[in-house]
Amino acid sequence: MTNGYIGKILEVDLNSGKLNEIPIDENTVRKFLGGKGLGLKIINDDFKPDIDPLGPDNVIVFATGPATGTSFPTGGRYHVITKRSPLTGLVGSANSGGKWGPYLKFAGYDAVTIKGASNTPVYLSIVNGKAELKDATDIWGMTTFATTDKILEEIGQPKASVACIGPAGENLVAMACIINEKNRAAGRCGAGAVMGSKKLKAIAVYGTGKVSIARPDEMKERVKEAIGKIKENPVTGQALPTYGTAVLVNVINEHGGFPARNFQTGYFPEADKQSGETLVNKYLTGKAACWGCPIGCGRVSKVPDGPFSISKSEGPEYESIFAFGSDCGVVDLDAVIKANYLSNELGLDTISMGTTIACAMELVEMGNIPESELYGLDLRFGNAGAMVEAVWKTAYRAGIGADLSLGSKKLAEKYGAPDISMSVKGLELPAYDPRSIQGIGLNYATANRGGCHVSGYMISPEILGLPEKLDPFVTKDKAQWTITFQDFTSVVNSSGVCLFNTFALGLPDYTGLLASITGWDLDDGEVLTIGERVTNIERLLNNRYGVDEKQDTLPKRLLEEPIPTGPAKGNISNLSEMLPEYYELRSWVNGKPTEEKLKELGLS
Amino acid sequence: MTNGYIGKILEVDLNSGKLNEIPIDENTVRKFLGGKGLGLKIINDDFKPDIDPLGPDNVIVFATGPATGTSFPTGGRYHVITKRSPLTGLVGSANSGGKWGPYLKFAGYDAVTIKGASNTPVYLSIVNGKAELKDATDIWGMTTFATTDKILEEIGQPKASVACIGPAGENLVAMACIINEKNRAAGRCGAGAVMGSKKLKAIAVYGTGKVSIARPDEMKERVKEAIGKIKENPVTGQALPTYGTAVLVNVINEHGGFPARNFQTGYFPEADKQSGETLVNKYLTGKAACWGCPIGCGRVSKVPDGPFSISKSEGPEYESIFAFGSDCGVVDLDAVIKANYLSNELGLDTISMGTTIACAMELVEMGNIPESELYGLDLRFGNAGAMVEAVWKTAYRAGIGADLSLGSKKLAEKYGAPDISMSVKGLELPAYDPRSIQGIGLNYATANRGGCHVSGYMISPEILGLPEKLDPFVTKDKAQWTITFQDFTSVVNSSGVCLFNTFALGLPDYTGLLASITGWDLDDGEVLTIGERVTNIERLLNNRYGVDEKQDTLPKRLLEEPIPTGPAKGNISNLSEMLPEYYELRSWVNGKPTEEKLKELGLS
Repeated sequence: MTNGYIGKILEVDLNSGKLNEIPIDENTVRKFLGGKGLGLKIINDDFKPDIDPLGPDNVIVFATGPATGTSFPTGGRYHVITKRSPLTGLVGSANSGGKWGPYLKFAGYDAVTIKGASNTPVYLSIVNGKAELKDATDIWGMTTFATTDKILEEIGQPKASVACIGPAGENLVAMACIINEKNRAAGRCGAGAVMGSKKLKAIAVYGTGKVSIARPDEMKERVKEAIGKIKENPVTGQALPTYGTAVLVNVINEHGGFPARNFQTGYFPEADKQSGETLVNKYLTGKAACWGCPIGCGRVSKVPDGPFSISKSEGPEYESIFAFGSDCGVVDLDAVIKANYLSNELGLDTISMGTTIACAMELVEMGNIPESELYGLDLRFGNAGAMVEAVWKTAYRAGIGADLSLGSKKLAEKYGAPDISMSVKGLELPAYDPRSIQGIGLNYATANRGGCHVSGYMISPEILGLPEKLDPFVTKDKAQWTITFQDFTSVVNSSGVCLFNTFALGLPDYTGLLASITGWDLDDGEVLTIGERVTNIERLLNNRYGVDEKQDTLPKRLLEEPIPTGPAKGNISNLSEMLPEYYELRSWVNGKPTEEKLKELGLS
Repeated sequence: MTNGYIGKILEVDLNSGKLNEIPIDENTVRKFLGGKGLGLKIINDDFKPDIDPLGPDNVIVFATGPATGTSFPTGGRYHVITKRSPLTGLVGSANSGGKWGPYLKFAGYDAVTIKGASNTPVYLSIVNGKAELKDATDIWGMTTFATTDKILEEIGQPKASVACIGPAGENLVAMACIINEKNRAAGRCGAGAVMGSKKLKAIAVYGTGKVSIARPDEMKERVKEAIGKIKENPVTGQALPTYGTAVLVNVINEHGGFPARNFQTGYFPEADKQSGETLVNKYLTGKAACWGCPIGCGRVSKVPDGPFSISKSEGPEYESIFAFGSDCGVVDLDAVIKANYLSNELGLDTISMGTTIACAMELVEMGNIPESELYGLDLRFGNAGAMVEAVWKTAYRAGIGADLSLGSKKLAEKYGAPDISMSVKGLELPAYDPRSIQGIGLNYATANRGGCHVSGYMISPEILGLPEKLDPFVTKDKAQWTITFQDFTSVVNSSGVCLFNTFALGLPDYTGLLASITGWDLDDGEVLTIGERVTNIERLLNNRYGVDEKQDTLPKRLLEEPIPTGPAKGNISNLSEMLPEYYELRSWVNGKPTEEKLKELGLS
């Protein structure tokens, strides 16, 4: 079986149990590439307002891009789009690495669309050329780790890749994620709960097909050149392979942008105890890399003893260290690793989980969550054991976990202090304080899926100086930079590759590599326009769910409370200095693309 | 509403949702009293072989005794009988204190029988004179603590008592228990899983009726005298109120009978770190007593900080300290308190839970459980964090918890070392090493429900010297003592009072008090014969499930491996010296009552 960049979608109707193959036309791919763009296109073609995110009318698309499964460096990713996220009520969006994406393509499909809902637990097996739904009654209830092993055994193909949900997804926890190969997560926006609501436990994929390349010799050259750039780049060639993403802990903390105690400040004095360097020195037992990745930022770690011991663990990533560590006031990296591990095992997004726990800790310290709701769990900043317990209690909705499972926004609303939720549009904020790093704040406020760092990773220019160094404290020019980063990231996520290669590769590299794969006569302008189109179609969908400029904001704390400690002491986010320019450059009015813009992008 | 000792049974058919009232005749009560005896009688009248313990044909009886809810000191107990235990496959038996038993009686019923199974979650409300089944869909999944609060709120009677199951019972975990008032457990034999299989989440009871006493003035005098004895007795008047049941930790350890590391030895050098004295000095914040109890052995404790912090907790009991502490090689009392707390919260029997974890730890250290099954959990003796994690993983059948949820017998069988399960008839052994205390070993081997200490609490004479001191190392006369204790305990459990009063009260006290309640002309012989009848009817039922003398034994280790350390070093259990005499005195052949014996007891 061989397929190229224009392949087919497997459409699964869980109401009827029927499977269909739908061809993808070249026009769609040239407009949206694949991955995120394709997912949004499918959702858009089938839009219905007012659907229940956890009802049968929600739709999940798992989509690879034209670069997935090719020699494009880091071409190992797939994107997940849900019509509506249980956490935000908007379009849900997340992506993941590992080998699941390439294997889906090798099995003959570019994307899988899941509609309807099954009455009994099922999993989808796309293995050795046969796609079928299988009974998952015996697997329902299992952790992601056990599910993976059990399905690999059942299908008799140990090399296959399994993307699945854990108990959190089954229990419809709003921040439940999808886990593939046990430790790679399509983390954000609660797609795991959507799978759970459909009683879809997993999708196993395996195939031996190849992805055809239009200009293979040219591709070879371009890949060689790209790998060279990745190897030579200090971030992708040195920092990430050596220290993993946790290399950022000390870097961001020294910029005064490492949020601590539910963003009460942007500086964590004990940060070095949970840094990438400490991780390497005290915990690292090996490294891991996704399919086709020359960087290899993955960590294999071990907590040899103590109350949080783990024989073997992957991670933790920088974001997870922030979420379970500094943001919860927890210094002990052992506990952070345990919380990260349990999140993978039970199927929880670490960012939303940790940030929601941090929110609960502040609500407890404020006296807003009464003792009677805590059932003995002493959820206060710095209590490592309570933090870890809160993770599994959320996955199972046990005790206060039932409230945590709603996400920080609904939690803070329930307990009478909505401003204490550090989220945008219901999605919890990641590990960069927008008071210290102005551009990332603009991105948080405008990113379609809510409080997201990877929609437009402004940390790259503002902190890492890639492709050039910007002053993180100033707002000038950040609107254009953010827009370019957002649209370029839409290209990345629609191509099926990893954002991390963009530390070394720029738009021209993408244009070249995509041209080699597709054989199209592409230029940088066309490619960036695809990105802009993808950004705008997602915005358009969210507008239909009610998003306008009122939602393009940040938590009050970040706009009004100056950072009390650290190198960025005294700073606030000057979002209002950037937003008007952003809208103007976007041609958005009241947070909505103008008709002219939509026409220009072929979206009207 | 007023009812006496001869009242009525509420029979609930969950298949049809119908509730019936069934009168209890005086003859039945005079033969079986109530509580355990009544439960067994009901089960026996309806016996069917080969039923699935987790199928709709299993039956649960909740029964009070004639003393429950009266002024008989410690008259706060109810007994739970299941036709078949998921842990042992035999009759399941457990009892609990608190106020649930008296409140059931005050609500107008002596017992509740549950038959069939519901399709959707329900709970039974017997409040203010009305018994009804209510929808529990929204409550299903909740912990025992949250369930209790939710139901009290729903029924609008905050003084009511709720007996319920937690996630463990819902998930059909073999050692799931029933919890009333959040911290009192009908612990052993897995009745929680039977409730779970019937989708019965809870039974809430409340009423204002009184229990009529046949000779109230005489009763008053006798109660006064009994309370005097309880207050004067060193165990019930001093040791238990001051230190709780944990007073036994140092006592039993100094006798070399405190089992450690899955009974690898009977001495734990660090025992004092988890003793009743340490509990009082470092953790105690208050005391608790069951309804009508002048002893008050309950503990209210707190773990103020550290990885296992808890704001407020009840317990732990001596048995739980052994199970999660010494038996798992865990010294840290913080962790023991946390494991005990989670067991209550999730609805797990602490003895079977801890002993099963200890069994798993030995299997891991032997190399019998491979790393691939552990999913990172480093289950080795002394690992406090892994022990605590194993508790909640069992309740949710997560990872290795799925295997632990089977109980130690099936776990050890699965991993190829059945002798490593420290159980009798599938029920895990409690906190006394039968190599150091011979009589308790005979009780373990012959107790109807399996490895049980409270069927015939030989610790009382062998260690505490009550009513007289026996040498724990010798076997002579232990058969008769064990039989007498077993039969007397059957009286205790059928009366609806607490075994702990027997440290101070003897058979004549019981005879007198029961006579005052019932108005019958009782003598000690008739009362002890009731006990013998109850012991024998339980045995008879178990014989029909296949029990014969082959099952009346102890784990090989205790019969063959001399204790390697401590004051009882070199000892083994000399069970074979006691069993033949036991059978002869019982008139049992091949572990079965003779026809003559049954005739004599009116059971043929």
